[in-house]
Formats: sequence, structure tokens, C-alpha cells
Amino acid sequence: MALNCNPVQGMRDLLPDEVELRRYVTETILDVYKKYGFTQIETPCTEHIHLLTGGDGGENEKMLFKILKRGEKLILNENTQEKDLCDIGLRFDLTVPLSRYYAINREKLPRQFKAIQTGSVWRAERPQKGRYRQFTQCDIDIIGVKGVIAETELIMATSEALLNLSFTRFVVKINDRRILESLAEYCGFPTEAYGNVFIILDKLDKIGVEGVRKVLEKAGYAPEPIETFLNITAQSATLTTDELPKVLPNLSENVLQDLQNVTRIITLFSEGRFNIQFDISLVRGMGYYTGQIFEVAVSDFGSSIAGGGRYDKMIGKMLGGKEEIPACGFSIGFERVIMLLTEMKFQLPQKAEKIVILYPEETDILPLMETATRLRTEGKIVLLEAEKKNRRKQLEDCRNQGYSTFAIYTENQPLELRENQ
Amino acid sequence: MALNCNPVQGMRDLLPDEVELRRYVTETILDVYKKYGFTQIETPCTEHIHLLTGGDGGENEKMLFKILKRGEKLILNENTQEKDLCDIGLRFDLTVPLSRYYAINREKLPRQFKAIQTGSVWRAERPQKGRYRQFTQCDIDIIGVKGVIAETELIMATSEALLNLSFTRFVVKINDRRILESLAEYCGFPTEAYGNVFIILDKLDKIGVEGVRKVLEKAGYAPEPIETFLNITAQSATLTTDELPKVLPNLSENVLQDLQNVTRIITLFSEGRFNIQFDISLVRGMGYYTGQIFEVAVSDFGSSIAGGGRYDKMIGKMLGGKEEIPACGFSIGFERVIMLLTEMKFQLPQKAEKIVILYPEETDILPLMETATRLRTEGKIVLLEAEKKNRRKQLEDCRNQGYSTFAIYTENQPLELRENQ
Repeated sequence: MALNCNPVQGMRDLLPDEVELRRYVTETILDVYKKYGFTQIETPCTEHIHLLTGGDGGENEKMLFKILKRGEKLILNENTQEKDLCDIGLRFDLTVPLSRYYAINREKLPRQFKAIQTGSVWRAERPQKGRYRQFTQCDIDIIGVKGVIAETELIMATSEALLNLSFTRFVVKINDRRILESLAEYCGFPTEAYGNVFIILDKLDKIGVEGVRKVLEKAGYAPEPIETFLNITAQSATLTTDELPKVLPNLSENVLQDLQNVTRIITLFSEGRFNIQFDISLVRGMGYYTGQIFEVAVSDFGSSIAGGGRYDKMIGKMLGGKEEIPACGFSIGFERVIMLLTEMKFQLPQKAEKIVILYPEETDILPLMETATRLRTEGKIVLLEAEKKNRRKQLEDCRNQGYSTFAIYTENQPLELRENQ
Repeated sequence: MALNCNPVQGMRDLLPDEVELRRYVTETILDVYKKYGFTQIETPCTEHIHLLTGGDGGENEKMLFKILKRGEKLILNENTQEKDLCDIGLRFDLTVPLSRYYAINREKLPRQFKAIQTGSVWRAERPQKGRYRQFTQCDIDIIGVKGVIAETELIMATSEALLNLSFTRFVVKINDRRILESLAEYCGFPTEAYGNVFIILDKLDKIGVEGVRKVLEKAGYAPEPIETFLNITAQSATLTTDELPKVLPNLSENVLQDLQNVTRIITLFSEGRFNIQFDISLVRGMGYYTGQIFEVAVSDFGSSIAGGGRYDKMIGKMLGGKEEIPACGFSIGFERVIMLLTEMKFQLPQKAEKIVILYPEETDILPLMETATRLRTEGKIVLLEAEKKNRRKQLEDCRNQGYSTFAIYTENQPLELRENQ
């Protein structure tokens, strides 16, 4: 009987065309990042459970794939609980591993550490279309730089990568966690409510101003803060950084200047190819952000294709909490980029000529191999195929694999290359 | 308190230099393989336990990392056994996944399917120097081709990849499982003993002829077969394919011709850059091989750096056993290649000029970013660093990262690039 050969639930096999696109996208992104002085690192796919459940992963911590202990460590009896069974798990993002990596390898790394990470992460989400339990993330992070030169470079590098992937008409939305805090303070929310208020604001896109009002009211906040809050956030599409001091007189001058500085530089850098826009309603889900936050939205596409921000507290916490390590990152939504390019029927640039040579089943393969080697030495991609009865069908199959040139091999005859169309 | 930030036991973090070398090696190998018409595929890192413990994985099946069931599937009570806890695990090689992939995706794949796979695999081996519990494999396989044109292309592609990685003086050892069977038959071992006899022969390198004799005797085989067997295998270093018919008169003519054909073609192809050598003592561990087997040995290095062979029965078995699917693969020992190149202090070719620009902490970053962008647009790698007090030390650190050019940035002054030495 045939075995069940489906991939594991919620995961997938990638066909050659899919891998080729993914590799092209990865290479394109890496080429840009490297020009900015980023270098690639790698961490194992598994991490200690205590790091994966430390609290910075939010919902992701509930979607852990845990790995069973082995040998003597695995004790099974009537008192065994789930937590006794595992001490490592598959990573659910690349940020927790980066922080651990930096903490342990710090002495071997430059003081300004510009890291690229690209790799698989795992989340046991309910399987649904376009969402998989193993997927790729692609992050850059700058560790050790306090000033917004870090934010500027992250946004430049990410935008340039997206431009090189033929994305245009995208918008970089930018905000600052400290602006959100000034906003919550100005409205008069109690300090302990800030986090929750931001989480509700984060839903503005989906539920609109009235939706946000209802959730805030249901949460029991006083009418006045809610009213002020909605008045300001309802203007998010048009509010500029110049108007900010009037709207939020309590906002720190530095925070404003940094925001204006980054916006100004990126606007010049964009040369009109994309936009950067302040958006006071931009929250970004993760609780660990401490400064500027950003997101890239592509028009005609619901959610964002990149996001990031400054998180100055997270790594210090891992190091024991005595010092603050400035850090800032930007993550490209790799799977979304792939999905969009596939929908756009993006054509990969063809680098080398692809030739298929059909040979008779019983031929002497020595001269055939010599011919193939000669063409390959010239840089051509050469596929050798035993000739099938239905030559037309065979050539069509080859054409679908991108072989636009073919030849019929006959011993002692010069090879005649023909167009496969 | 600082958290334990070591990587999971037996696994490792890769520093930027290490990743750069690994990427270079991967790219070099892929570039060659693609010229031969191979295309890359990917499978998930996890597989169903029933596939991972199907028997073809040998010792590796005992080193599985299993993943804990989730939610309702996980039942813990006094009767729970280890086998009830997990239904998926991390893959321990890329061959089992390839067979599953082919079985399920066959209709979408070309009839001659030339696959490249490169990715991580996991084995819970006892941690020791140079051996890790997560490591990379790099395989090519040709599925659907019966003739030795497949073997020839695999050996050509793999040798060319190794040559391009600057390996020389390597030897491709070749044998055929059917020659081993003829040998065992000729010696007069009972059929059911063949497998075990081959396993013992596989240790010839390590324990020598006398060692093999002792193990065979201890296993209780008759003196006469042992004597004949040792007489023939002791000549393994010098025995040529031309002499084979005399030594093994029971050997099939086809098997011999195929072997001579491949050896002849590869000898020509090598142009003296490497050797191909018949070796009757070559066994290759895995039980699934059915035809030619091969291995690449580098002088001055104990074990092999690549290995493979034909396995015509494995995929058919997965499909339910009704048909035989011809298949043939070659795997480069990626981690060994990396280890050797590192020992050889292999220098990566430097593609782009690397420039570090030191800027004063308080500078206006707009013109600085414009300068950097201009240089990056010219294809240069540009690192921006806030100038530290100890400039000499800072530049030295940058030099260690490969930045051979530097400049001190001063506002409104033209940038002066200098050699960083």
C-alpha cells in the first residue's frame, strides 16, 4: 500500500519554479542589504523553551512547536505534565534568536552590528489559504546605534530592496511609540491603560473610528479621553509632523525632530519612487518597541509587506537588565512579497540560455557528453533528454521548464540548435 | 539575572564570516548544478514520523528529534507511552523527503526530474567537535533515468562543483552494488549474509584486511568464502575494471560495460584535474542502493566529501511498490567542505569595494546619507560609523570586517577615500 505522502499539516512542498522565485527575491534583497554594510548571521532553528516563552513573543508563544526530550531526560509517569516533556522548541520569529545571539556572541561582533537574517520560522496557526506553519522571514537589524541614522538606513535599505523587486507606489508609514505615549497622556488616559489603548488603536484600519470608539467605551474608559483620542487619530491620514506640536503640546522636541529628520531624508532619497508618510495611528503589534516604528504598505494590497522599529530594551533584558542596548530592525514580509509577485505574474530575468538536447536511447553517450560539456563551459544550461516517441509533447514540456532552444543529437553530426517554440 | 543564552545543546550560532563562506560555497555549487539542468526544490523541515521510521534511514532513525503533539491530540495519562506523544519529527536527511515529494508531486514534475536540495537536517548525535545536531546537506538527484547517463552527469556536476571550490587532487571512487553481490556470490557466502558481509567490508579502511578477517570469522562464516573474499578485496587499490571478468567470472556483462563507460567518460572529462578509480571495497552505508555507487575522497583527509549512487527501489516502495522508479543521487558533504576550506584558510573572492565612513557624532546626517547613497549606487559597500575616540582601534576593527578603504566625513568637504591599512 502506498504511504501517506502529503507534507505535514499546514506545511508545503515548493516546486522548482517557486524555489527559483524565492531565491531570486532573497538574492535581490541580500544584494541591497550588503551594500549597506549588513552581514548575514544564522542561528539554529531550535531555541530553549525558556527563551521562547519569555513574554516578548505575544500570541506567537502559544503557537510553539515543542520538541520532545530524549533518553533519560524524558520521564513518563502518572504525574507527567506537558511542561515536563520538552525543553526546546522551534523558533517562531528571528528577533528572539537575534537577541540571544547578540547576548552570547557580543565580544566577537563589531560594536555597530548590522545583521541580516533570513530563515524559516514555525507557528502552529490554524491552517488557511496563504498561511503556512513553516514560513520564511527576512530581517535586518542594527544593534549599538542610538541615533536615527539607524532608522534611516533601515528604511533606505528596505525601500531600495522593494524597488529592486519592481515594487512601486508603496508607502512607508512612520510613527514613534513616544508620540503614541504623548497622545495617550494628552488625552488623559491612565498610564496603565496605554498599552491597551494602543492595541485598540491598532484595529483602526479594520474597524474604523466608530469601531474604535465602541471598543474603548466597552473597556470602560472615561468619555473625555476617548473623545480627544478619536478627534486626533481620525485625522491620521492628513496630520503632518509640522502640525504635531499644536496637536500634542506635550510632545518632546527631540522626538519630533528625529521624525522630521528621517522623513526629510527618505523623501529626498525616494526621488518620487515611493512615499514616506507620518501616521499617528500606526501602532505595530509588538510590545517591545521603544521609539520610531514603521511599516510599508503597497496600494491595492490589504496588509503591510514590511514592518519594524526601535526596541532599545529587549536585548538588555536578555543580558540581565543592567544596561540598555540600542537596537532597531526592519522585517520584510517575505511570504507576502512572494504572494504579490506571483499574483503579478512577475517574470524572472533569464540569465543563461537554456538548451535541451534530445538523444536516441541507444546512442554512445561519450560524444554526447563532450558536446554538452562544451556548451556548459560556454555558460549555457544544458538538459539531456532521451528522445520520446511524442517529440512535440516532449519539447512542449521542456519549453514549460524554460528551454527555449533545442537540438536533436545524431552521432557524428554537428549539433544544430533550433528555437523551441 | 541574565538568561542562559547559549544555543541549544549540540547546535551553533554562525558568525558573519562563517555565513559568508557557506553562502559562497552554496552559490558555487548551485551555479554548476544549474548548468546541468538541475532545479531546486524545498520540502518542510518536518515529516510524518511514519516516513522517518520506515527503515531506510538506518541508524539515523534512532536520532530523531520528535515534535510534541498539540491541543486535543496530546493525551497525557498513566498509560501514555512515548509513541503516543508525537506524530511528526525533524528530517534527518533529504532523501526520505525527496522520495515523499516525488510521490506526491509527480504529476507536476518533468518525467526526467533533476532535483537540487540544500537545507538543514537534524540528528541527535552525541555532541563532539565538528559534529552538530543541526547541519546542512546538499544533494542532487535524477529521477526517471534508467541509463548511466544519470550517473555520468551526477559525477560530472559534483566534480565540477568541487573543482570550482578549488579542490584538486581528489579521487572519485566508483563501484556497483551488483559487483558486490557477484563478489559475495562468487565467494560462496549464503545470500542472506550479503548485507552483513558488505557492512563488514565497509570497515576495511579502518580495520584493515586482518580486521575484516577477524570480524567475518567471529560472525561464523565458513573459512573458504572468507579466504576468497579477502584475496579479492585486498587488491582493491589496484584491481582494474579490465581485470574484473577474470576475478569475477559470474559478473554480468552489462554491469561491467556501464562501469567502464562511466569511468572512461569521466576520465576524459577530468582532463587530469582529478581521478576516477574503480574500488571493489567501496560499499556506501545505506542499504537502499541498487546499482553504481560513488564517493569522493580528498587526499590528506580521512573520510569522503561526497557520496551517492543509484537507488531504483526506494521511491517505488513509497508509491506502493507496484512499479520501479529509477533514481540516482550524489550528496556533497557540505559541512566537511566548509571545514576543509576553513582549515585551508580559503580566501573568498572580494566582489565589491568596502568603504567605511567615520562621521562626527553630532553631524547633520542628510548630506552624509547623500554621500553614502552615491557610493552605494556605484556598487560599493558603505558602512557608516560614528567616530570613536580611539580611531586607530576603530579602523582596525573595520579592517577585520574587510573594509580596506576609509574616509573621515566632514560637512561641506569633499570625501577623501584612503587605504585602511
